[in-house]
Amino acid sequence: MTNELMARRQAVLGPNVPTFYDNPVHLVRGSGVWAWDMDGNKYLDCYNNVPHVGHCHPHVVAAISEQAATLNTHTRYLHDGIVSYGERLTAKFQMELDQVIMVCSGSEANDIALRMAQAMTGKVGIISTDNTYHGNTMAVSQLSSRKPPIGGYAAHVRHVPAPDTLRPVGGSFANQAEAFAKEIQKAIDDLEAAGHGFSGFLFCPTFANEGLPDLPQNFMRPAERVIKAAGGVLISDEVQPGFGRSGGTWWGHDWLGLSPDVVTLGKPMANGHPVAAVVARSEVMSAFRNAFGYFNTFGGNPVSCAAAAATLDVIEQDNLVENARIIGGEFLERLAQISHSSIASLRGRGLFVALELEKDGEADERLAAHVVEYARNHGMLMGRTGRNRNILKLRPPMPFCSADTECATHILADAFAVDVT
Amino acid sequence: MTNELMARRQAVLGPNVPTFYDNPVHLVRGSGVWAWDMDGNKYLDCYNNVPHVGHCHPHVVAAISEQAATLNTHTRYLHDGIVSYGERLTAKFQMELDQVIMVCSGSEANDIALRMAQAMTGKVGIISTDNTYHGNTMAVSQLSSRKPPIGGYAAHVRHVPAPDTLRPVGGSFANQAEAFAKEIQKAIDDLEAAGHGFSGFLFCPTFANEGLPDLPQNFMRPAERVIKAAGGVLISDEVQPGFGRSGGTWWGHDWLGLSPDVVTLGKPMANGHPVAAVVARSEVMSAFRNAFGYFNTFGGNPVSCAAAAATLDVIEQDNLVENARIIGGEFLERLAQISHSSIASLRGRGLFVALELEKDGEADERLAAHVVEYARNHGMLMGRTGRNRNILKLRPPMPFCSADTECATHILADAFAVDVT
Repeated sequence: MTNELMARRQAVLGPNVPTFYDNPVHLVRGSGVWAWDMDGNKYLDCYNNVPHVGHCHPHVVAAISEQAATLNTHTRYLHDGIVSYGERLTAKFQMELDQVIMVCSGSEANDIALRMAQAMTGKVGIISTDNTYHGNTMAVSQLSSRKPPIGGYAAHVRHVPAPDTLRPVGGSFANQAEAFAKEIQKAIDDLEAAGHGFSGFLFCPTFANEGLPDLPQNFMRPAERVIKAAGGVLISDEVQPGFGRSGGTWWGHDWLGLSPDVVTLGKPMANGHPVAAVVARSEVMSAFRNAFGYFNTFGGNPVSCAAAAATLDVIEQDNLVENARIIGGEFLERLAQISHSSIASLRGRGLFVALELEKDGEADERLAAHVVEYARNHGMLMGRTGRNRNILKLRPPMPFCSADTECATHILADAFAVDVT
Repeated sequence: MTNELMARRQAVLGPNVPTFYDNPVHLVRGSGVWAWDMDGNKYLDCYNNVPHVGHCHPHVVAAISEQAATLNTHTRYLHDGIVSYGERLTAKFQMELDQVIMVCSGSEANDIALRMAQAMTGKVGIISTDNTYHGNTMAVSQLSSRKPPIGGYAAHVRHVPAPDTLRPVGGSFANQAEAFAKEIQKAIDDLEAAGHGFSGFLFCPTFANEGLPDLPQNFMRPAERVIKAAGGVLISDEVQPGFGRSGGTWWGHDWLGLSPDVVTLGKPMANGHPVAAVVARSEVMSAFRNAFGYFNTFGGNPVSCAAAAATLDVIEQDNLVENARIIGGEFLERLAQISHSSIASLRGRGLFVALELEKDGEADERLAAHVVEYARNHGMLMGRTGRNRNILKLRPPMPFCSADTECATHILADAFAVDVT
């Protein structure tokens, strides 16, 4: 059955469309932090950040169903949905981040952010880190070292070394913030010298795709100073850390004490319904809106707004931002009890936890792969990341509770225990 | 109430986000080909192609509701939804168009199509018409003369004169097909000479944004010959004409007797749920998939596939492709009875009808604006297009029936009758 579906899948989707796992999981149902496959096996979901308030949350499902049965149209007609949601959303940000464009995907959001930087500065040079992913459009894929663009990188793009826990930029953890800022300054100078000019810096405030390095709260201050001094637009990609994921604060940039000019949102925003957004300072929004007649057919439609608003409801009502902080902390404490010689670093920000595996000072990709497969075969979904795919990634839906951390820790401990290296 | 909402809308969305109409329509409910505003006024919808099988079609709403309550996740897990839908969808195409990528918007689809052309040819030069719109990403906005990109057009883009009913390319309707092909050849030569090379031609097979010009069925044959002889990828943007809109055939390119290499789909695909796709020949898909590790978080998720499959169900069960042909023909016949000196051309393809207005040989934009506003004030939604916004555009949901054509014609006849020029 699985083999037959895999063959049909490959026939109709083409090559290089991988599934996770040696033995792919064929999911058929989800609820809360749990998912079930077609044989009735149950999985604790420690991977999926898209079903942010839990798989198939009834409040979100009801909102989608009700609005889909009432009206679904575009934003050239007046509708209360996008206005009310926009107001609620921007109220979660620093005061000057008060305007929004709604779109369908984080990639569309970042694609707009790049043009906001261009519109504000009249320049095109853009900087991101060298171990990241920000989306899949032609323009945004220029920023992604993970999925290099077709035809290679354009001349107006620079990648600076990503912050790292075990191999900090500049060689020392204490000096990493200054060293990182210096690398950005170097890239800015280089872009200016090459005639592209510097339009902006686009980054994830938890550096999630970079492997979630442990960083002090003031890490980005020197970088922010350098970027703003050069007149660049600071773009915080909150597709992963946003909506409370990083615990205690709604946005990763708030934890860092930053004032970005543009913030992009995506995956968790409507619990899986295709919704994303760009939040910006009004002068940035005006520069973009006046330079380009942007319209997005599906963006901000009443159903998308209902789904996003219902997701906000649940985050607020169930105190999920605080839950991420508390349960994330508990999760880290439990995981710290696991002992294995290859665990080089355990770190987390809210409900996003990373375990970096090394052996003899080298990335232990084999062990990371073993743990992920073991977990899959023992009822838990998780992933891995890092330049060498040696960092275990745990990023469950936000209603994760204490008992779930216990269950997950138990499976992980077993996975490490049975490893026969 | 409307004024207050407009003010709040502008405050949170920023400038240059227009609504339709002098007095914006504040829609609250839709059903079939009808929509209602918040004062209870009812509108015959002759504008919206996104609610393809009718506003809030219960079969589509039920499919969305049921799947949203069951499972919504990404395509790195196995799921029958994307495979079964992909098979059903590609079965509607010429045999060699047998693979699909599912995404969230027509813009994302066209952004991929551009890269498919690059991956196939190793070149970057791209051609579209000079009176068109294909989407809003940074890369795709290069093709759109309607919404020029920030910073101006890139060097690898060429725009050829769009086909036109009243002012044909080359000066004569009979020679327009050859003249259009010659313009494309000129652009190809120019791209090759400039060192960009020619990767492909992206066009809408009904030239919908170009004003839906009347064209013979063999119009694109000379152009296709030129494009294929130069090794270019032929990309048919079916976001507007697809799924039977143009009547009698599922796709605009089938009516033209063309064999595109890539087809992009969007707006009507899931009746308003944010779903779009790229269908391609397997060698084109392989070239793209092997050149770039494309993954779209929301693309092809089980809810999107359920919505798209349910939309296909209704199109098939209610014979909407044939309905578009028959009712579209009837609509044209009725509209031909309206007499006004400014009606320079009445033309249509299925349920997409255009009335081009001129006065003394000049575009009559004033009259077009009057008719659209009059219709809005008398219970009908419609739009206008064209270089000078002088072409009335009627593009209702597909379950449009004979009585609806009568109703629409009546309102239009009144609008022309009361015009006091």
